[in-house]
Amino acid sequence: MSNKPTLIQPRTLRGFRDFTPNLMIPRERLIDTAKRVYRSFGFSPIDTPALEYTEILLGKGGDETDKQMYRFEDQGGRDVGMRFDLTIPFARFAAQHIGQLGTPFKRYHVGNVWRGEKAQRGRYREFIQCDFDTIGTTSRTSDVETGLVIYELFRALGFERFTIRINDRRLLSGVLDHLGLVERQTDVLRVLDKLGKVGPQKVTEELRDAVGLSEVQAADVLRFAGLSGSPAEILGEARELVGDSEIGAAGLEALAALFESVAAAGADVSRFALDPSIARGLDYYTGVIFETFLDDLPEIGSCCSGGRYDDLASLYTKEKLPGVGASLGVDRLLAAMEELKMIEETAAPCPVFLPLFEKGRDGDYLALAQELRAAGIGVEVYPEPKKLGAQLKYADRRGFPLALVVGSSEFSAGTVQVKDLKTGEKEDVARADLVSHLRQRI
Amino acid sequence: MSNKPTLIQPRTLRGFRDFTPNLMIPRERLIDTAKRVYRSFGFSPIDTPALEYTEILLGKGGDETDKQMYRFEDQGGRDVGMRFDLTIPFARFAAQHIGQLGTPFKRYHVGNVWRGEKAQRGRYREFIQCDFDTIGTTSRTSDVETGLVIYELFRALGFERFTIRINDRRLLSGVLDHLGLVERQTDVLRVLDKLGKVGPQKVTEELRDAVGLSEVQAADVLRFAGLSGSPAEILGEARELVGDSEIGAAGLEALAALFESVAAAGADVSRFALDPSIARGLDYYTGVIFETFLDDLPEIGSCCSGGRYDDLASLYTKEKLPGVGASLGVDRLLAAMEELKMIEETAAPCPVFLPLFEKGRDGDYLALAQELRAAGIGVEVYPEPKKLGAQLKYADRRGFPLALVVGSSEFSAGTVQVKDLKTGEKEDVARADLVSHLRQRI
Repeated sequence: MSNKPTLIQPRTLRGFRDFTPNLMIPRERLIDTAKRVYRSFGFSPIDTPALEYTEILLGKGGDETDKQMYRFEDQGGRDVGMRFDLTIPFARFAAQHIGQLGTPFKRYHVGNVWRGEKAQRGRYREFIQCDFDTIGTTSRTSDVETGLVIYELFRALGFERFTIRINDRRLLSGVLDHLGLVERQTDVLRVLDKLGKVGPQKVTEELRDAVGLSEVQAADVLRFAGLSGSPAEILGEARELVGDSEIGAAGLEALAALFESVAAAGADVSRFALDPSIARGLDYYTGVIFETFLDDLPEIGSCCSGGRYDDLASLYTKEKLPGVGASLGVDRLLAAMEELKMIEETAAPCPVFLPLFEKGRDGDYLALAQELRAAGIGVEVYPEPKKLGAQLKYADRRGFPLALVVGSSEFSAGTVQVKDLKTGEKEDVARADLVSHLRQRI
Repeated sequence: MSNKPTLIQPRTLRGFRDFTPNLMIPRERLIDTAKRVYRSFGFSPIDTPALEYTEILLGKGGDETDKQMYRFEDQGGRDVGMRFDLTIPFARFAAQHIGQLGTPFKRYHVGNVWRGEKAQRGRYREFIQCDFDTIGTTSRTSDVETGLVIYELFRALGFERFTIRINDRRLLSGVLDHLGLVERQTDVLRVLDKLGKVGPQKVTEELRDAVGLSEVQAADVLRFAGLSGSPAEILGEARELVGDSEIGAAGLEALAALFESVAAAGADVSRFALDPSIARGLDYYTGVIFETFLDDLPEIGSCCSGGRYDDLASLYTKEKLPGVGASLGVDRLLAAMEELKMIEETAAPCPVFLPLFEKGRDGDYLALAQELRAAGIGVEVYPEPKKLGAQLKYADRRGFPLALVVGSSEFSAGTVQVKDLKTGEKEDVARADLVSHLRQRI
C-alpha cells in the first residue's frame, strides 16, 4: 500500500542500443579521425535534418529501403519520415543550395540514419553514416582524390594492411557492348554482384538461365570478372574483351590514368588494386568504383565503398550534378578494429587519474589538475576523499594508464608520485618537471 | 507531353534547417572544443537512441514538453517517441547500466533532440544539446569542478568577458524556512524565476497576491534575491536572512567553500559571482546552481546552466543517483559569437588552396598536396585545370586564407608562390622551406 509509483523498466527499443564509454570512446576517435582526413582534403561538413517530408525521402519510391523508413504524421498533419541514408538528403540539399554554394562542392556528412528493418545480430535500426563527396565536376582528379582520401583514412586509423579495390563501370559496359548485351547490363550487374558470395559456377548458371546469356557470353563476362594481376596486366587483357567498344576504351583509359596519378601522388601503390569483379550492385554508379578490404579480415567485406555517378539530384533539380564519393562503414570498421586488437580497452577519456585523499586539500588537488590541463594534459580528479586503494581500483577499472599519488609528504616535498597503473611501477617526479615527464609518457 | 517526371520541390520541414559549411564549420569547432574540455576533466562520451519507448520518455508525464514530443507507432506496433532532451535518456541509461559502470560516473552527451513546438524565429524543432554530469556522488568537489568546467569551456571558446553566476537552492530554502514558508517554496521559485524579466515590483505583487506572502515576507524574499556584492558580502547579509535555519546554514557553508576552492584551483575569481537572484525554475535542482552570462551580451540569457540534483533516475531505479551537471547552449552561443564577430566567416575547412592549372601535371599537384598533408597542413586541390583567375575566385569565395600558385616555372625552379588571399601579397618560397613557412603563417 505504498504511495511510491511503480518503476518503469529501463530498456531500449529492439534494434537500438546505448553506447557506454568503452564503446563510445573508440567510436568518437574513429569519427574524429575521419573528419580530420576529410577536412585535410578540403571537404567541408554539412548537416541536414533527421526528419524530412516523405515525398522528398521516397523520391521515385518502391524499393526495399523505403518500406523500412520510420514514417508518421507530425503534429501539423504532415507526412514525414526519418532519413534512412545520407545520400537522398544530400541530393535534396544540393538541389536547394548549390546555386549559393557553387561548384565544385565538396562535403562530408556524419550522421545517424534509421531503418526499421528486421533486427538481427550486428544489424541495427539506428546507425551512423560517414560520407564524403565531390559534386559538380566530372574531373578525373576528383576520382583520384577519392582513392587518396580512402588511403589516408585507413592509414590515419592505424591500418597498414588494406587494399582499395578499384574498377570502372565502363569496363563491364564495354565488355557487354562488345558482346551485344548492353541492354541487359542491369541484370548482369545484379548477378555479378553475388560473385564473392556464391562463386563463379552459380553466377555462370544464373547469367545463362536467368539473364539469358549464351555459354560464350557468360564465359566472357566471367573471364572479365576473374582477371587478376597488376593493373597493367588486367588492363591489357581487358582490352581484348572490350574490343572496339568506345565506352570500354574510356574505362580502360580512365583506370590507367588513375593508377598512374595515385603513384605520382606518392601513395603506396601496393595498397591499390584493379579488381574487375567488383560491381557495386547499384545502377547509380557510372564510372570508377571503390571497395576497401582489410587484408587480415577480408571476409567482413568492404569497409569503405563508393564511386562516380552521373547525376546526384535529378529528382529535385534540372541542374545536372555529377559527382564522386564514398562512405565509411563505421560499425563494420570498429568491429574489425576490435577483432584485430587495435582498440585499447578503456573507458578513460583522458590519460591521468588524480586520487584525492588528503582531506581539506581539495583546492591543492584541483590546482594541480588545472596546471596539467593548462599544459594540454587531461586529468580526472576523484571527487571524494576515499581510501587510496578504492580510488586506484576505480582508475584501474576505467583503464587509466597513469595515476598521480600526492599525499601530504609529496605536497610538502613539492613532488608527485607517478604510478603506472598497468605495471604498478612508481616514480617520484618534481612538480617542476611533471608536465614534461607526463608528455613523454603519454 | 514529356516523359520526364516532374521535379520534387527540394525543401526542409518548417522548424528544421540545413547546415551549409559556413554554418557547420563553427558549429563543429564549438562542439569539438566542448568535448575536448569535458574529456580533460575525465568526462566520457555516451550516446543513446533517438527513438525510445514513449513510456520511458514521458515518465510521470503531463508537462508542456511532453505534448511537443514526436510520437508515433513503429512498424512493430510499439508506441515510440523521439527524445526531446538528453536528461531523460541519461536517467534511463544510468538506471540500466550504472551497476556495470560503477560510481562516480562522469559523462558528456552531445546529440540532437526534437520538439514539435511552435516554430518561431530562433526556435527550432531539431536542436543540439551538449550536457555533462557527474552522478553517484554528493561530493562538493564535483560542484566546484562543474564550475571549473564551465570556466575552462568559455575560455577555450575564446571568451574573456563572461560571468558564471552561482547560487545554492538551500539559501532560498533557508530564507523561506526562517519565514515559515517552506511548503510554498515551489510557488515562490516559480515567481522569483521571472525576476529578470518582469522586475522586483511585479514579483513582489505576485508573491503577495498569488502566492499569499505577507508584505514583510515578500520584502525579505526580494531583499535576498537582490543582494549584491562580493561572495563574502552577500553571504554575510544572507546569514541574517536565513537566521537559524539548518538548510540555510548548509547552503551558506557550501557556497563559501565553493568560492574558496575555485580560487585555490587557480581560476580567475572575477569570472565567478554569487547571485541569489538566480533560481532556475525547475524543482529538480536541490543544491548549487549555475548560470553563465556573456558580459557583452547579457540580454541573450544564460549560455550554460545547471546545478546539483538529489536523484536522477527515480522513475527507473530504486538506486539513488545524486549528481551535478550543466548544459551548454550551443545555438545561443553560436549566435552570440557571430554577433560578437568571434567567428571568421569561412566555408574553408582547411587553410591552403592549391589551384591546378598546368595541364597534364595532376600527379605533381597531388604529390605536393600529399606532402603538406603528411606535415599536418590541410590542402584543397582544385579538380579542374581552369583559368587561374577562376580558381582563385572560387578559393576567395570560400574564404581560404592562402593559395599556392605553382606553374611550370615554379615546378622547374623548385619553388612555390604563396599568395595571401586577403591582402593579395605574394612570396616565392623554396619547396624545401614550404612546410615551415606555412606553419608560421597558419
